[in-house]
Formats: sequence, structure tokens, C-alpha cells
Amino acid sequence: MSGNTFGKSFAVTNFGESHGPAIGCVIDGCPPGMELSEADIQPDLDRRRPGTSRHVTQRQEEDKVEILSGVFEGRTTGTPICLLIRNTDQRSKDYSEVAQKFRPGHADYTYLQKYGLRDPRGGGRSSARLTAPMVAAGAVAKKWLLAEHGTRFRGCMQQIGDLPIAFESWDHVPDNPFFAPVADVSQLEAYMDSLRKAGDSCGARIRVTATGMPVGLGQPLFDKLDAEIAYAMMGINAVKGVEIGAGFASVAHRGSMHGDSLTPQGFATNNAGGVLGGISTGQDLEVSIAIKPTSSIITPRDTIDLQGQPTQVITKGRHDPCVGIRATPIAEAMLALVVMDLALRHRAQCGHVEPPISYADSSFL
Amino acid sequence: MSGNTFGKSFAVTNFGESHGPAIGCVIDGCPPGMELSEADIQPDLDRRRPGTSRHVTQRQEEDKVEILSGVFEGRTTGTPICLLIRNTDQRSKDYSEVAQKFRPGHADYTYLQKYGLRDPRGGGRSSARLTAPMVAAGAVAKKWLLAEHGTRFRGCMQQIGDLPIAFESWDHVPDNPFFAPVADVSQLEAYMDSLRKAGDSCGARIRVTATGMPVGLGQPLFDKLDAEIAYAMMGINAVKGVEIGAGFASVAHRGSMHGDSLTPQGFATNNAGGVLGGISTGQDLEVSIAIKPTSSIITPRDTIDLQGQPTQVITKGRHDPCVGIRATPIAEAMLALVVMDLALRHRAQCGHVEPPISYADSSFL
Amino acid sequence: MSGNTFGKSFAVTNFGESHGPAIGCVIDGCPPGMELSEADIQPDLDRRRPGTSRHVTQRQEEDKVEILSGVFEGRTTGTPICLLIRNTDQRSKDYSEVAQKFRPGHADYTYLQKYGLRDPRGGGRSSARLTAPMVAAGAVAKKWLLAEHGTRFRGCMQQIGDLPIAFESWDHVPDNPFFAPVADVSQLEAYMDSLRKAGDSCGARIRVTATGMPVGLGQPLFDKLDAEIAYAMMGINAVKGVEIGAGFASVAHRGSMHGDSLTPQGFATNNAGGVLGGISTGQDLEVSIAIKPTSSIITPRDTIDLQGQPTQVITKGRHDPCVGIRATPIAEAMLALVVMDLALRHRAQCGHVEPPISYADSSFL
Amino acid sequence: MSGNTFGKSFAVTNFGESHGPAIGCVIDGCPPGMELSEADIQPDLDRRRPGTSRHVTQRQEEDKVEILSGVFEGRTTGTPICLLIRNTDQRSKDYSEVAQKFRPGHADYTYLQKYGLRDPRGGGRSSARLTAPMVAAGAVAKKWLLAEHGTRFRGCMQQIGDLPIAFESWDHVPDNPFFAPVADVSQLEAYMDSLRKAGDSCGARIRVTATGMPVGLGQPLFDKLDAEIAYAMMGINAVKGVEIGAGFASVAHRGSMHGDSLTPQGFATNNAGGVLGGISTGQDLEVSIAIKPTSSIITPRDTIDLQGQPTQVITKGRHDPCVGIRATPIAEAMLALVVMDLALRHRAQCGHVEPPISYADSSFL
Repeated sequence: MSGNTFGKSFAVTNFGESHGPAIGCVIDGCPPGMELSEADIQPDLDRRRPGTSRHVTQRQEEDKVEILSGVFEGRTTGTPICLLIRNTDQRSKDYSEVAQKFRPGHADYTYLQKYGLRDPRGGGRSSARLTAPMVAAGAVAKKWLLAEHGTRFRGCMQQIGDLPIAFESWDHVPDNPFFAPVADVSQLEAYMDSLRKAGDSCGARIRVTATGMPVGLGQPLFDKLDAEIAYAMMGINAVKGVEIGAGFASVAHRGSMHGDSLTPQGFATNNAGGVLGGISTGQDLEVSIAIKPTSSIITPRDTIDLQGQPTQVITKGRHDPCVGIRATPIAEAMLALVVMDLALRHRAQCGHVEPPISYADSSFL
Repeated sequence: MSGNTFGKSFAVTNFGESHGPAIGCVIDGCPPGMELSEADIQPDLDRRRPGTSRHVTQRQEEDKVEILSGVFEGRTTGTPICLLIRNTDQRSKDYSEVAQKFRPGHADYTYLQKYGLRDPRGGGRSSARLTAPMVAAGAVAKKWLLAEHGTRFRGCMQQIGDLPIAFESWDHVPDNPFFAPVADVSQLEAYMDSLRKAGDSCGARIRVTATGMPVGLGQPLFDKLDAEIAYAMMGINAVKGVEIGAGFASVAHRGSMHGDSLTPQGFATNNAGGVLGGISTGQDLEVSIAIKPTSSIITPRDTIDLQGQPTQVITKGRHDPCVGIRATPIAEAMLALVVMDLALRHRAQCGHVEPPISYADSSFL
Repeated sequence: MSGNTFGKSFAVTNFGESHGPAIGCVIDGCPPGMELSEADIQPDLDRRRPGTSRHVTQRQEEDKVEILSGVFEGRTTGTPICLLIRNTDQRSKDYSEVAQKFRPGHADYTYLQKYGLRDPRGGGRSSARLTAPMVAAGAVAKKWLLAEHGTRFRGCMQQIGDLPIAFESWDHVPDNPFFAPVADVSQLEAYMDSLRKAGDSCGARIRVTATGMPVGLGQPLFDKLDAEIAYAMMGINAVKGVEIGAGFASVAHRGSMHGDSLTPQGFATNNAGGVLGGISTGQDLEVSIAIKPTSSIITPRDTIDLQGQPTQVITKGRHDPCVGIRATPIAEAMLALVVMDLALRHRAQCGHVEPPISYADSSFL
Repeated sequence: MSGNTFGKSFAVTNFGESHGPAIGCVIDGCPPGMELSEADIQPDLDRRRPGTSRHVTQRQEEDKVEILSGVFEGRTTGTPICLLIRNTDQRSKDYSEVAQKFRPGHADYTYLQKYGLRDPRGGGRSSARLTAPMVAAGAVAKKWLLAEHGTRFRGCMQQIGDLPIAFESWDHVPDNPFFAPVADVSQLEAYMDSLRKAGDSCGARIRVTATGMPVGLGQPLFDKLDAEIAYAMMGINAVKGVEIGAGFASVAHRGSMHGDSLTPQGFATNNAGGVLGGISTGQDLEVSIAIKPTSSIITPRDTIDLQGQPTQVITKGRHDPCVGIRATPIAEAMLALVVMDLALRHRAQCGHVEPPISYADSSFL
């Protein structure tokens, strides 16, 4: 009810503030018997971690995960898995100005109005730091889905600011700090360097996919697979738009070309993005999200103070000039959490149903 | 869990199939003491109803709503409100071909794979007809929100196919069959006529807003206001994309202009679309959605049959050439249901909190 | 949230008032592919129906169930099943006195205080009539559990007023109007006749069991099988106590005799009542409930009116002198709904787990 | 869904195992602005703590609680409150025998059958140690309810084994290790000493109450106040029966005396136990629970091993001869959590409703 639990069957309850003693989550519903250790989780956290290149925040957080429960002798027991990440680099001394003024584009104003008080240290609960436990939980989901269904999740950058990025190959993604699917990122580096020098920030567009999707996941009326994806993606800090498959391009499509034909070898195209009537087709999930520019910039902005008087605010500190960059592993994790939850929910009602149609290759696209 | 209930505090459980005896919903959680009769609900159903112009399906459904419970002597009692709509124009004789083949762009294939069987009459549960009970429930939410907070919901058409529609005035919306905010719709009529003659269909882009929003609605981490909106909108049949505020345009924005400045008179701009950190700012909610072209067209499409053999399918019957047109009142209703649910949920945790800051006019935009 | 939905995976949303146009429920989550018609449901409704003997209320309600959705060509489709029961014998003219005074033992006072208004006709929403839709939903659950697991549910009377009833055989239960497991009910009849003549009412104690239970149902910490049973039973109108297995007799037990020994042939005893650590053992579920005397009696009672002034009230009308009698099929239905819900929930998390230990006969007791 | 979260609006997610590194919980939904520190929570934990007298387990656990999130500068912020309790006295070396055999009365058998594996150290997740986080969460609920509504929770012992304990005064409860409301506990001490010498255990009966209850809490059909109480109590380890108000004694009551009369000064009696139609009357909540004898005893018991072969088991270690003793603060905490959750849920739907009737004193009993 209060919005800190994600999912129903694979339910992840998130806790913590940016500058409190620790952040973490409790996963309730993980199937028993799966091998699990911190080593399964840490790599994804490291991909999201700050301080890994000059193009992201220089804040230093180890983001070391500790499994507090739910695992016995290296296997999940079916009981809640508590994942704890201690906050190490908190530097919360200098939040006095932020406590008195509302930073444009931030949650300062709305938190205060909603709760009557707020924790101003590093954004408190509204900090993107709270995505770290989701990345950790997502790693658990990814492991199960890969073992059980062969499902894999990948994300890459499609656009930074006004620079579109052509898709060359997934292979390039781990080789540059932008999660860009291109061999040469020199143009991106120059762009980011000039932005940082200007004390400004920019938005980004990210693509996330799942391959090896089971057929039949998603509830038909409200907890549709695409609706759950939209919910998960729009819930990531700074996301302002979500597309599935052809997305907004569908508006100008004609019906005679948009609907994906079926052939004995599978669907001929994937405008649907892997979802029909809210249920997975077995094709790749194709999701695209828009991320707004970082709100924390050193350029002075007009605002008001707690008394409603006009003033200006500069957000000092160590901020990402493009929060979209580190959002790639976050979006992957959220997509994995959606699929995981719907996979378990599907088993409850239809666990015994054998899909009647079996393709030679249902995802040959 | 099985996805037929929308909302938690104002929970709407939807039931029925396109060609069954009836469709409807049960609203659980409506505050007691509100005056309510069928006359409060019918007008919105009539706006969504088929057969009102030559540009929408000619199927004739009265969509007459009946209140079965939850109202005593003209006032809500706080107990569940069951709204029933009898199906009157069912014509389900000729679904034999549809039962044997998968229509591209439809849920035929995924329903069969998920459940092992499906109701092929008029799309069964996957029919857009199931949005009618949501429009009915939305009317109840609208009435309460208007009385309690002065909140109003409006939608209009932004684009049909490749024809963008400039915004002239909300006043024009009720005066044409397209929900278009323009005085002259002759171009739209010609476009739709030629499309119908070609036996084809097109997509649409719709804008939905809420004015008079209370400050502080939305749960901060997962049930964010914008996340819930994305979930609600993406759950409407045929929706492929959702934007809040500046949406995908945010990607190319700079932080120095994107974040909305605060002034003693309110926010200076509304790139946020009325949401910061997942919580309402009090500004207008601004939402935009992309709707794919109608999948049911009379142009032959390649597909397979139940045995996996290649064949062709033509969808006869009475279909909307642009399902986006009738989606406008649906999107309004879903937005109202999101706000209603979060308004009640907010009362649970923070019902006693007085927003500390009070603007002269927080929605002067 | 508002308390009109029972269950999570097999979720039953109940609606209606005693004297409104109809009562009913929506079942969300029923597995697809099960044969289902009204004929599967009506017999249990008939067992609960009023007017079947002189020992229960003479109100005449047909309680004819109609399936409005979720079934296609005689099989469940996996979509919501709406069950509707029209109210036929409403006689709501004479509720004016009841509307002005609070009947002792009734919900009149609490409904008014909670909601600020109430529907006084026949108790409105607080009427035991609202258990009819649960009996209907329970019949659907019973059918699935019998087919899938061989589970059967039975209830019988253990005590009426201060008359204990020895258990002779389940075979006698359908043969008398008291659901008593004895051949000779002449003593019970005399007891009830004299009670009716005295214008008074009495309580009852009922036993409900399930045989053929699957092992492993129930969630370990909070949604324990026994906790869910207690919740379901205490939610039945007029229930004031619930016991599992040895129940309150356990207080005087010693540990050396209470804990049920395990043998290669199964458990040696069943003090546990079929539940250990909140999870089903495979033994019979053994539940016992206490039902208070009917509050509606024709003996005058002291009370106050809406203005808080002292007065007296006599509840005229057609009431059960022992509501416990008709509670037997209700308790069976609620037990079936609990087991059904937990069976589906178990599949979500542990659907693939094979119980490692297999007894020759785990329920030989 | 997986049963480790208690409550909906004040939702407590519990994690941990008896012998893992830590146990704890996350509270989601605590109203913002309440002063809170570890000092508010520790006293109740200390009342439940093992090792405080010779009549309870000699296991030494400090049960020191740490607040990890949700509190800023000494006040709740409305975000999740994570409470952590490190396990300090784990001694898990000698569980090899327990891992091979099923202890009668324990969850060993059912956990293995449900999950396919189990954590045998100290009972793992099924240990009563997991009630400690609930006592901690209950202390938070108690503080809010006292400040907001003046509600207080108290529990006492009613019977140990076959020794009934007369109620003398609440004042005696803190003065003896049995939570007994009597001045002289020498008989109880002798009883417990002889039991311990015999290597046996016994059951207990506990009473829990709430005074200063708000009127109108509880949802009418399923999440009734009494149903939620039954669910909460039956979920406590070893509880086998629950009564509200007159409980099982109601069976032999007549309607002419059972229903509590209303007078201008309030209800004349409290057979209802503070609940009518599932909603609080404002009278004291009166709850009674039956607790089975401790299953861990040093007397040898017949059982089987993992291979299904007959064997015997002795439970060594440091166990409570009567688990009912330490259950008193647990039952109080669970009752407080039920009332807290329903208080917040009531605000969502009926937050604006003023109870129409106001008594001079509604709980004068």
C-alpha cells in the first residue's frame, strides 16, 4: 500500500535512504533450491556502481552486498532473502542549503508537502541510490530465469542528449562507459566532456530487451506484461516515457503492416515488442525508455525557499551529468523483476497448462 | 494476482466477455455518503459507446449501466458497488474462422498458449469492450474527486495516423466525433473516410490531463503517480507508448532548462507533467499515449491456423478503423482511477499531514 | 484493502446487500479448462438455503445462481467468473423501527459509526445472506480440489446450545436438518421447538474437516494454513471461537503426549489438526468453531435509539433460532476456499518441488 | 503472496532465520512525524527475551534492535523503517541429528516436504525467534496508537497446564516471570519446576486486551477486526485456538442474554469482546488464545528419519518448558499490529467520517 514493495509473487521490499546507515531489500517468494551467493549479485551492482568512469558521478560507494537470510549451505530455502548494502561514502555535512530550498526537478518540494518533513541528505529516499537494491534483486531473478527458461536480459544506450547511437552489436556494450552498442565512442566522450565543462546535464534514451521469453506470461486485463513493464520503467528515477515494440511510431502505422504476421516459423516481425493482449508471445521483449537530464547541476536555478520567497540554488556535489548512463543495468534489472514475478504468478493459475502450439523457432526474428 | 482488479484502496474488479451475457465491475472502497445514481455514470459510457458516428464501429450496444449494490437511498454506503452492463448485440455466430486462425495483432495466439483454450467470440476477454466497466468506475471516481478536491479530467486527440492535430481549445472536443480540440475536422473526416474505403486502419496519439490536482499523491518508490499512470495507460487495449510531461522530448533537453523553476506563484513550467519523485506537485497532470492501428481489418493477412499451417485471415465484422478515437474517454477514466486510488491511499498514511507550503496559486500555468 | 475480497490467487470479491436487487461474487484466478456449470454450484447453495425445515428461518429465497462470465462452452477459461444470485424475497417495508434503534448483538451500531450511514434493510451488508456467494465460490473450489488432489470437505454439528452431539457417522449428516452426525435427532428437535416457543435462540459448535489434503500448503510465517483458516472461520457471521486440532484442550496437554509421533505409515495421532509450522502435513484438517446465539429474537431487549435515548427493541421477522445450523455448509465452503487459495499460491513459489518423502499412506488415521 | 508480510497499510515484512546472521523486519506505511528511537522498542523486546528467569529457555540472546532506515533526526519520515536484530548466540554445531529426523510437533517434516530442503539450525525460519521482529514492530504501532487514540495493549496468563490462574490485577503482571495477574506465584513456580525436572512441557492460555479502542475499525466482510485478530493470533507459533469475547462459552448461551444491551452510558456487557459485525464497538478488545506444550522436550519420542525408517529423537538444547509464557508480549504486539493496520485502512475509505453517536463513556465496563 505504501509503495515500497515491488511485485506480488517475487516481492521485493526496498528500504533505506541515500545517507542512512544502510540500504537493502527483502525478496519474498524466491523459489527454493537455487544456488545463490553474493558472487551472483555483485557483478550487476558493479555495473551500476558510481565512480567507474569520468562520465558518471565520482561518489565512491563500494556497494558491497551481504546476504542476511534465506540461503542455507549455498541454496535458497524459499524463505525471505534479505540483501544489505552498507552506505560508506555519506558526506552528509553540507545539506543545510538543500534543506532550505527546493531544487528544481527534484522531489524536495513534493516530499515535504506529502510527509510534512523530509530527509534532505543526498535526496534521502528519493535518491537514485535506492535502485541499487533493485539491481541486486534483479540479479537473483535473472539467475533463476536463465536457469529455468533460458531468458536473458540486455540493455544498451540508444541516444545521449541529441546524439542518436546506431546499433552495431551487443558485444560493444561492456567495452565502453556508456553501454553504447558501438565500437567507437569518441564522439560520445567529447559530447559528455563538453557538457560537464558547461556545468550542464542531458537526457538519454535506453533500449532493454529480453530474449528466450516463455510464452504466456502476463495477466490479461490489468497486470498485462506491457503494463507491468511500463510501471516498472516509469518508476525508475528520471524516466519520462516508455515504449513497447514500435511504440510511438505505431501512431503513423497502418493496420495492414503493423500487426505481425504469423508463419510456421514464428512471427514475421515484432512491432508488438513481444506482447499481444498483455501476454508474452515468446518473441523478444523490446522496450525503450526516455530519461530526463540530471536535475542536479552546478548552473544556478531559480527557486523558492521554505518560506516561499524567491531565491537561487546551485547543486554542488558529485553528480552524474547524464543519469541515463547508469540506468541501463537498472532497466535490465527491473525488466527481469517483472518477468520473474509474472512467471511465478502464471504458475499459480496455469502452471499445468501446456502451450498447445509449438513452433520450430518462435523467436527467429 | 490474476490481474482483473485495478487499484488497491479504490479497487475495481472487472468481469465479463465481449459476447457473454454481461460485463461489469465491482468497486470496493468507495467512500460512503456520496450521492450516486446511474445518471452519474451513463454520460461517460455514452461517450465511449460504439455506433455514434460513421468513423467508429457500427456495432450497436446500448451500454446501459445498472447499479446492483452499494447504494442505499441514493447514497454510497461504503460497501461494494456492483455495476452491470448487459450485452445486447452479440452476433456470435460467425466466429468459426476466427476460432481456427490467429489474427495478427490480436491476443488469439497468446490466450490460447496461456490458458490452453480461448473464447473466440468477439475477442472474448481481450476485447476492448471490457473497458466499458472501467469508464463506468471512472465516472464514480471523477465525481468524488471533483467534489472533494476540484479535480477534473479531460482528454483530446493529438494525432490520427500521420495527421497531427493542433490544440485550439477544449471547447471543441465534444463537438466532433474525433475528440479533436479543433473547430474544423473536415480534414480528419476525409482521412478517415479514405482509410475506411481502403479497408485499412491507423493509429492515434491522445493527450489526457487532470487539473485541480491535490499535492502529495503518489507513493515514492514503486507506486509512484507516474508509474501508476504508465501502468494504467499501457493496460488500455492497443496502447504502445506512454509519456509524462515532456516525455521523449526530455532526451534532448539540457538540465539547465528542463527542471521546472519554482516561483512564489507556483512552478514556472511543467516539463515534469505534474509529478516530481513520483508525487503530485499540484500542477496539471500531462499524459500522452500512442495507440496502434486497429488489428481487425478486412485486408487479408498472412497467419497460421491451429495446426501451425500457413493461411490467410480477413477480419469481417464491425470494427473501428481507428480504435484510438474511442480511447479518449477510456484514458480519462483510467487516469481518474489512478488519482482516486492514490488519493485514498495517501489518506491512510498521511491523512493528517497538512502540506506545509501553500501557494497563492499552484496551478497558474 | 476494503475487505470484500477473499483470497489472493483464488480471489473471491463479494458484493450485494440482503435486500438489494442481487448478491454475488467474482472469482479471479480459477484455473482454466475445468468443466463448470450452474449444476456444480446449486447443490451447495441448496444446503445453505433458508426455509428448508421448521428449525431455520422461513424466509423464502430461491438462491438460484447464474454464471455471467468466465465459462465458455462449459469450461472455465481462466478469466473472472461472475456468479449472480437475484434477491427474490425482500419484504423490506418494515425496517423503520430497526433504522431508528440498535439491535443488541447486531452490526447496526458499528456500521453507522464507521460509515456515517447504513442500509437497515435486513441487515444490509452485514446480513448472513452474504455468505451465499461464498458457498457458491466454495463449490467451484471444491470441484477443482477434488479433481486435482482428491480433497473433500465435510462439516457436521457438534453441539447445539448445551446439548453435545456425539459423532456416530458422516452418513447421518444429510439425513437431518441439523447436519448432525447421529441417527436419532428427536432430542435436538424437541430442544429447538421449545427454544422457538420461548422466542429465544442458542449457539452451536461445528466441526469441519478436509480429507485427502496435499502436503506442503500454507505459507510459513503469516499466511499459515491454520492462520488463514482462523481468519476465514472468524469471518463467518456470529463465529466467536476457532480451534485447530486439539485446540483449547492443548493447554492442559503435556509435550510428551501432544506432539504427534511419526511412523513409517504416517502420523500416529492428529493433535496438530493437519498443520505443523503453518504447513499442511497431509493429515485431515480438523477445525472446530463456536457460533453465538442468533441476535434477532422476539424477546424484548434494552437498547438506545439514534438520539442515544434508552428504549427497547424486538426483532420481528423470520429468523434462524440457531444460525449455527445453516453455518455448516458455509464453514465447509470457507475451508475449501482457504485450501484452494493456498494450493495455487504454493504452485507459484514451489510448483516444481516434489515432496521428498512419500508415505505408504499418509492419512491412514 | 509468500506469507512474510503482515498487514496492508502498516505492512511488516519479516526476514531471517534462528541461526543466520540476523533477523529483522521492514515496516512500510508508518505515518510520518512520530518521534522514534531504539529506546521505544527495546523494552518490549526485553520482555520477550529468553534467559530472564529459570522458567524460560536459557539461550542468551541480547535482542538488541537497530533502526537502519525511515527515521531522520529522531522522527519517522514516512519511508520504510528497517529494524535489525543481530543473532549472537547461535551454537548451531549440533543440529546433525535434527537434520536427519523429524521432531514430533515441529515443522521439520512440513518444511522439507514443501521446499525440498530446510535449514535445520534451531528450527530455521520456523523458530519462535522470528516473533522478535514482530514485537519490535508492535512497539512502533503501540506508540502511535497510544498517542493518536489513547489505545493500550495488555496481556496476561490465564492458565498454565492444568492450573487456572484467577485474575487479581494487571499490576501483578510485570512482577513475576509468568505474566500472571496474581500476587502469589509460588504454586506456578512449583508446577514449572516439577515439569522441568520431568523433562516435559505444558500448554498455556493467554488473555490479551486493548483499551481505548477507536470505534469503527475493521472491514465488514472479510478483513473483519475479529477475523484479522484470529489470523494474527493463530499465526503465532504453537497457538491452537482463539476466542473473541465470550468465545466457546457462547455455544451454550441464549440470545436473550448474550447480545450486549446498549444504554446511554455504553454497552452493558461485553460478550462481543469489542467487535460487532467485524467492526470495533469502542469497548475493550477481549481475546484469549490456547498454546500447545513446547514440542522440544528431552523425553524420547517416536519418529522417522529422512529415509522413512522408525527411530527416536530427543531434543537437547535450551528450550522453554512452556512457550506460552514468553508468548504474552508477542500476542500483545500482534494485537497492536492488527489494530494499527485497520486504523490506517479505515482512514483511507472513511477518514472523513465523524461517528454520529458519541457516548458519555463508551468503555465504562
